[in-house]
Amino acid sequence: MSLTVVGSIAFDSVRSPFGERKRMLGGAAVHFSLAASFFGDVHVVGPVGDDFGEEQLAVLEGRGVNTDDIERVKGGKTFFWRAHYDFDLNTAHTDETQLNVFGDFEPKLSEASRQADNLFLANIQPDLQRQVRAQCEGARFAALDSMNMWIDTARDSLVAAIGEVDCVILNDAEIRQLTAEPNLARAARAVMEMGPRAVVAKQGEYGAALFTESGFFALPGYPLEDVRDPTGAGDSFAGGFLGYLDSEGGELDDPTLRRAMGYGTVLASFNVEQFGTERVATLSRAEIDDRFEALRSMTQIESLPA
Amino acid sequence: MSLTVVGSIAFDSVRSPFGERKRMLGGAAVHFSLAASFFGDVHVVGPVGDDFGEEQLAVLEGRGVNTDDIERVKGGKTFFWRAHYDFDLNTAHTDETQLNVFGDFEPKLSEASRQADNLFLANIQPDLQRQVRAQCEGARFAALDSMNMWIDTARDSLVAAIGEVDCVILNDAEIRQLTAEPNLARAARAVMEMGPRAVVAKQGEYGAALFTESGFFALPGYPLEDVRDPTGAGDSFAGGFLGYLDSEGGELDDPTLRRAMGYGTVLASFNVEQFGTERVATLSRAEIDDRFEALRSMTQIESLPA
Repeated sequence: MSLTVVGSIAFDSVRSPFGERKRMLGGAAVHFSLAASFFGDVHVVGPVGDDFGEEQLAVLEGRGVNTDDIERVKGGKTFFWRAHYDFDLNTAHTDETQLNVFGDFEPKLSEASRQADNLFLANIQPDLQRQVRAQCEGARFAALDSMNMWIDTARDSLVAAIGEVDCVILNDAEIRQLTAEPNLARAARAVMEMGPRAVVAKQGEYGAALFTESGFFALPGYPLEDVRDPTGAGDSFAGGFLGYLDSEGGELDDPTLRRAMGYGTVLASFNVEQFGTERVATLSRAEIDDRFEALRSMTQIESLPA
Repeated sequence: MSLTVVGSIAFDSVRSPFGERKRMLGGAAVHFSLAASFFGDVHVVGPVGDDFGEEQLAVLEGRGVNTDDIERVKGGKTFFWRAHYDFDLNTAHTDETQLNVFGDFEPKLSEASRQADNLFLANIQPDLQRQVRAQCEGARFAALDSMNMWIDTARDSLVAAIGEVDCVILNDAEIRQLTAEPNLARAARAVMEMGPRAVVAKQGEYGAALFTESGFFALPGYPLEDVRDPTGAGDSFAGGFLGYLDSEGGELDDPTLRRAMGYGTVLASFNVEQFGTERVATLSRAEIDDRFEALRSMTQIESLPA
């Protein structure tokens, strides 16, 4: 099986109460691919500028990510984001955004990326998501992320894109905003009525909830005493979620989706322990599986004694 | 076994986007006792005025709650609270508070209430909580709730009260405020260092988390498409939690505390489906157990296929 992700590749400068980093490797497609790389074959599609070097490529290739579809734009500069967090790590305060080559991004997929069994459309303009979706028509499972800006400025395109995927992975506030429905259970149902068979509501430190036709499932965030940089947690979640699904040959039924939620939660939790990609770049599959089992045991209620 | 609760008995006037009620029966001790009444013998201690009538008593006694220690203050008026909710049902907007007889409350416990096996100190002035705790010295498990006002104005008393109970049940923001620690896992550990062996962090619609020496457990809120009035959800949670523990003769170990978290979550979910006590007053134990099993199944990850 294989998994393609299309989205941003970035340099991030981040300051939190626990430290600061300048021009780290970042971006949705990067965090996603590194997280997904523990489960199988990942192809990353996105644009970079002349400032993107071997050091950055090596992080992705060190995890076995296929970088053939990283497009190098001559004379261009890589997407740059600068932000800080206060003690409430749930809120990123953006100080500077330079779209650079990402502003003119037109995804170009190689045959190998188009043939992927599974597809993740990270947060990009929804018409571009639709173009990519159309090129990967053989994908058995496609999911997308988005953001409040597209709900505000390109809602019709976003709704059309949602109608063409199997799953949306959004923050709970975005699900409410998209549907103008304050009740999350109703809002998730309204999103499913647009087409997808699964809706994942990301809830920051509170975890994530999964809505499907047959039911509801939720996991808390993995409890951590040291969170240094939440940047990329949502994309790492999506990477663990789609990565696990890509590694599953069988039917993507509810028990499988629940386990994928567990792997998403685990990858997000490792991501936030250090700045940028630092923690995930040194992670092992054994550490992931150990934390998955720990998370499972933290959420189980035993049956009542007979 | 038996369970005593000390706290407010009130008339609540509440408006939400889903309706309005004037002068409903309310108050922390009322919501707690009704929820706990499905599990065993509950004694409620709190003050009311001349305006508290047979109709209100009948709601409590209809559920078998022992009301002998409801103190009728001659010439006084019952605590009154008026508030409204907007579409964000997580935030109550208080429009009016009349403490009335609750302002001069000095808890008086009968012998039967003092002999309780388990004790809940609902949100009252922490020195009063300590007085009650001292009178119920035989209680095998005591828990308390509090609020931001006492953290601001009576922190030392509150910390002393916390040192004398087995469990605190607070909103997660209160746990952070009390300990001046933004990370919830660290904040909960700091509360345990004050004495209690269990800390429950209530997280509104996101559910609740349990911290003990041996670990972490969390449950999502039960997903509801119709939430009409969240007033009393936290006290109903505590009532289901302590009520279940009171019904358990054995050791209050982690598996038992986890099941108690489940019953707390279930009682809170019924509470918010209708205004005030309306839903819980008509509830049955069978409905509670059915929803408990539904909640359990919504949070289980199956083991990985062999």
